[in-house]
Amino acid sequence: MTAQMPPTDADIAAAVERCRPLIRRTPVVESVSGDLGLDVGVAIKLESMQYAGSFKARGSLNNALASDIPASGLIAASGGNHGIAVARTARVLGVPAEIFVPSVSAKAKVERIRAQGATVHVTGALYDDAQAACDARAAESGALNIHPYDATHTVAGQATLGVELGEQVPDVDTVVVAVGGGGLVSGIRLALPRTRIVAVETPTCNALHAALVAGRRVSVSPAGVAADALGAKTVGSLPWAVLAGNVDSVLVSDAEAMRARQALWDELQVAVEPAAAVALAAIRSGGYVPAVGERVAVIVCGGNVDPSDLVTG
Amino acid sequence: MTAQMPPTDADIAAAVERCRPLIRRTPVVESVSGDLGLDVGVAIKLESMQYAGSFKARGSLNNALASDIPASGLIAASGGNHGIAVARTARVLGVPAEIFVPSVSAKAKVERIRAQGATVHVTGALYDDAQAACDARAAESGALNIHPYDATHTVAGQATLGVELGEQVPDVDTVVVAVGGGGLVSGIRLALPRTRIVAVETPTCNALHAALVAGRRVSVSPAGVAADALGAKTVGSLPWAVLAGNVDSVLVSDAEAMRARQALWDELQVAVEPAAAVALAAIRSGGYVPAVGERVAVIVCGGNVDPSDLVTG
Repeated sequence: MTAQMPPTDADIAAAVERCRPLIRRTPVVESVSGDLGLDVGVAIKLESMQYAGSFKARGSLNNALASDIPASGLIAASGGNHGIAVARTARVLGVPAEIFVPSVSAKAKVERIRAQGATVHVTGALYDDAQAACDARAAESGALNIHPYDATHTVAGQATLGVELGEQVPDVDTVVVAVGGGGLVSGIRLALPRTRIVAVETPTCNALHAALVAGRRVSVSPAGVAADALGAKTVGSLPWAVLAGNVDSVLVSDAEAMRARQALWDELQVAVEPAAAVALAAIRSGGYVPAVGERVAVIVCGGNVDPSDLVTG
Repeated sequence: MTAQMPPTDADIAAAVERCRPLIRRTPVVESVSGDLGLDVGVAIKLESMQYAGSFKARGSLNNALASDIPASGLIAASGGNHGIAVARTARVLGVPAEIFVPSVSAKAKVERIRAQGATVHVTGALYDDAQAACDARAAESGALNIHPYDATHTVAGQATLGVELGEQVPDVDTVVVAVGGGGLVSGIRLALPRTRIVAVETPTCNALHAALVAGRRVSVSPAGVAADALGAKTVGSLPWAVLAGNVDSVLVSDAEAMRARQALWDELQVAVEPAAAVALAAIRSGGYVPAVGERVAVIVCGGNVDPSDLVTG
């Protein structure tokens, strides 16, 4: 894949127009002090209610709509959520799709890819292995290879979440968001240039944090409860160009992520995967402490969970 | 219990002010044609995200705040949701609570009542049996007996959902809502006097429908998937005074309710109990057919579900 440039403001504005008919404006619920184990109220953007169950619907749709789609359709590699999103994009556009997922991907996600009518290949242990297999196949089939984060149009699509949030919470000071390869966080960074962005990872899904520490992109070894969603070995080169020096970084433990997820279920009846709860966990754990009066938005970025993973509160 | 009058506009306005600090403004998500098995878009009010998991938090809180609470605290009977709500009200107000539930109540609901710190008594087969036991105990203990629907302040509290919906969807023409004893639907009827109200029940939880057919309150035999939430033997006398001649009535089958519930999970990642899906089912099934351009709001009234009841989509 050739190096891709960060989207411009015009690219993001075009993405907003392009995606509007086929993307859901996801709701925001306001918590108050005492809710969800927090002593401050936050605005919670429920992107778990997006088509295909996560923000990935935005980037994949924008990428497909901005491109010429060959007869062989769309192809993508994914820990799961991007695969569901590309499969959904292919279905609504009436083209075929092949999706490569690693063995770490949750069964619920693989089933949702198949439910959208795509062909699924389970290849390798982690996302990067599936991406290599996907790229080889794309070279052969000529299908449009939609990268989950290292592509201009993908990041422009994810940026539409930031644009929407800015409309829904116009006084937002700070956005707290989970990071995998960096597509969503870099999109929000570009869409909301005057807000603080807190990028949250776990100690074992830490591609951005490791890069910020090293001052350059480095490889990590993804593991733990968020590995099928945040498990990129390296932060994308496009996201890195956007994020280096422009983002706060916080780590939360797997246990903190699981407790935050349980709180979302117990208090809001919102069922999400562990990776979607790490942003909330960053505030609950004290990893990020908002100032008095600071207006904080927390992104609940994906919902694709097996409901039997939840316990009754 | 002495006969209670329907709340006045002033009662409802007072309930809005009284409840505001302790009630969540639940979000509305807009669906579009093609979503959720519907060929029309609807506004979906996610009251499943309310404190205590249902609209019952509103009525029980308003009733308690408008009353003198004795040292023996609060007492209530409930199929489950009202019990969780009264228990939560007691916890936030720092008073004790006793809750009577029938054996039909879902395990997830009984656990949530206990989690709020209330004493639970499982008594009788259906809600009305538990209500009789509750009333006997209340006469003995002197606790404030919060009726789930046949009480002025309870209905005024439920009406706050209608007030909120009117602010969120100011052009709403029609509200589609599930009915048990009639507290929520009568509250919305009073809060939104110029909208059409479509009251939805199942063939075996049909207290309002049977009353509308008979022209007077009659007893039914609650059964089926919604029995622990909509299983009143008769519609309340206060709700009946509000609703007779002022509401459309639709029945949906248990199977239609279950399919609507699955659609909410598969497409919105919203996990709810069957009773909370009957309103959506009324449109999916063609039981209520909106006119072209009609602005319809669907109330998803409660979320208290055992997640293991859901299957992965």
